[in-house]
Amino acid sequence: MSDFQPRDPDWEARCRASLAAQPIVSALGMTIERLEPGFCEMHLPFRRDLTQQHGFFQAGVVAMLADNAGGYAAYSLMPAGTEVLAVEFKVNLMSPAKGEVMIARGRVLKSGRTLSVTAVEVFMRDGVKESLVAAMQQTCIGVAS
Amino acid sequence: MSDFQPRDPDWEARCRASLAAQPIVSALGMTIERLEPGFCEMHLPFRRDLTQQHGFFQAGVVAMLADNAGGYAAYSLMPAGTEVLAVEFKVNLMSPAKGEVMIARGRVLKSGRTLSVTAVEVFMRDGVKESLVAAMQQTCIGVAS
Amino acid sequence: MSDFQPRDPDWEARCRASLAAQPIVSALGMTIERLEPGFCEMHLPFRRDLTQQHGFFQAGVVAMLADNAGGYAAYSLMPAGTEVLAVEFKVNLMSPAKGEVMIARGRVLKSGRTLSVTAVEVFMRDGVKESLVAAMQQTCIGVAS
Amino acid sequence: MSDFQPRDPDWEARCRASLAAQPIVSALGMTIERLEPGFCEMHLPFRRDLTQQHGFFQAGVVAMLADNAGGYAAYSLMPAGTEVLAVEFKVNLMSPAKGEVMIARGRVLKSGRTLSVTAVEVFMRDGVKESLVAAMQQTCIGVAS
Repeated sequence: MSDFQPRDPDWEARCRASLAAQPIVSALGMTIERLEPGFCEMHLPFRRDLTQQHGFFQAGVVAMLADNAGGYAAYSLMPAGTEVLAVEFKVNLMSPAKGEVMIARGRVLKSGRTLSVTAVEVFMRDGVKESLVAAMQQTCIGVAS
Repeated sequence: MSDFQPRDPDWEARCRASLAAQPIVSALGMTIERLEPGFCEMHLPFRRDLTQQHGFFQAGVVAMLADNAGGYAAYSLMPAGTEVLAVEFKVNLMSPAKGEVMIARGRVLKSGRTLSVTAVEVFMRDGVKESLVAAMQQTCIGVAS
Repeated sequence: MSDFQPRDPDWEARCRASLAAQPIVSALGMTIERLEPGFCEMHLPFRRDLTQQHGFFQAGVVAMLADNAGGYAAYSLMPAGTEVLAVEFKVNLMSPAKGEVMIARGRVLKSGRTLSVTAVEVFMRDGVKESLVAAMQQTCIGVAS
Repeated sequence: MSDFQPRDPDWEARCRASLAAQPIVSALGMTIERLEPGFCEMHLPFRRDLTQQHGFFQAGVVAMLADNAGGYAAYSLMPAGTEVLAVEFKVNLMSPAKGEVMIARGRVLKSGRTLSVTAVEVFMRDGVKESLVAAMQQTCIGVAS
């Protein structure tokens, strides 16, 4: 459990509505599996059509899931009447993204008035085993919706 | 024209074969439009199913095209018998990625024995107008194939 | 010459006053050698006491000069009554920072209402020869002073 | 306690000797306060001459301490006969670096054959209170010494 207090009582519904409004989320099959104030876990089951030449998830797909997990972690703490945008992110790709499900866990490091900073770890799950495949550090901004 | 000299006379065929071997490339519709030693330009026509909640290309899609453009710019200078992998990248998202075609232009800053560093600029083209929407700085590694 | 138009007619005096107000600038010996709207070049002559174990400028010193060059490039375009702060930066260290003078050239990629994005290249000058040693991508924010 | 096993039984002496060989370390007053396989904590007491215009540690100084903490965390796991170099790092500056002592805690996320990835958190200590001021994600390389 995180120590963050949401500023908007409807934070959860707002996050889920935002996710549902993204065409790419359903097109690719990304889902939110856990959502708490300042934390978001997203999943993407393996898909052959999103792989690079060695059969692993392409780096951009890894970045996409991580960017979403970090973004919704940040968004959960933003006030009502805002939308979240990624300002920038940096991702280190540490191991090939192969396995059954890709899991990104984003948590807020700082939730400021304008900017939020998140850290996201990305794992591949194969059976019961999880391996760390990437880490992202991200800046988000809240803008009036 | 860049000043780089390719180390592999078959660099161009090798780059294009690598691109063709990536399922995600054809699935999403990315193409190489210009390829020179140390430089690569890739295009992705707008697709509604790859957008976020405001109808712009999702940040991860921007990163994916930029990552590929930087990767092939780096790969063009690698010796024969290697494959290219992205080690890490960082992208700043400066403006909404809306328009008809997304264009990523990657150029090599440093082509070392083990690691390469690239800079990629991403534009959206609308009619004849191009706008800078993102910039990436990327590290790639060449590994024995 | 850049295409940027400063929003504050006193931009240059404001930048130089900010530099003069930084104790670390004179302590280390950093100087602004060129300043234009959206561009800043800073120098740091070699100093043995700022080196790492191989006698090159330590990576943090490289980052410091680059961060300042990018920050003042961004600051030159900010409106009156603001101060500049670095939000984040990412630096690739491509070659050992050895030579007589370290030179950082920062230019603005985007000067937004709240955030600015810069790209900085860092060179070492030895005699008449300049070598690229590092590249930085940076985000700055303007805050009311 | 970390789960990492050092590959060099003399890892600790090697790390401390490397630190002692860096002129900048004693010039600025950085110290290692905790060193374990895959983990390093470094301190830098506040110094007025290393501040920016508001009296806080300049961003480059924050990056320098973080870069060292991450570098020695990575170096602790490298085999004998190697030296450590930072390939790149990215730092988010979340709060002003003011207080009595700056503390950087670096831990290894991945210790590979060629590259290592670290995450570093930077705190300012004021009395008994510690505040998170920055976070870094870093790539290091081991090269034959």
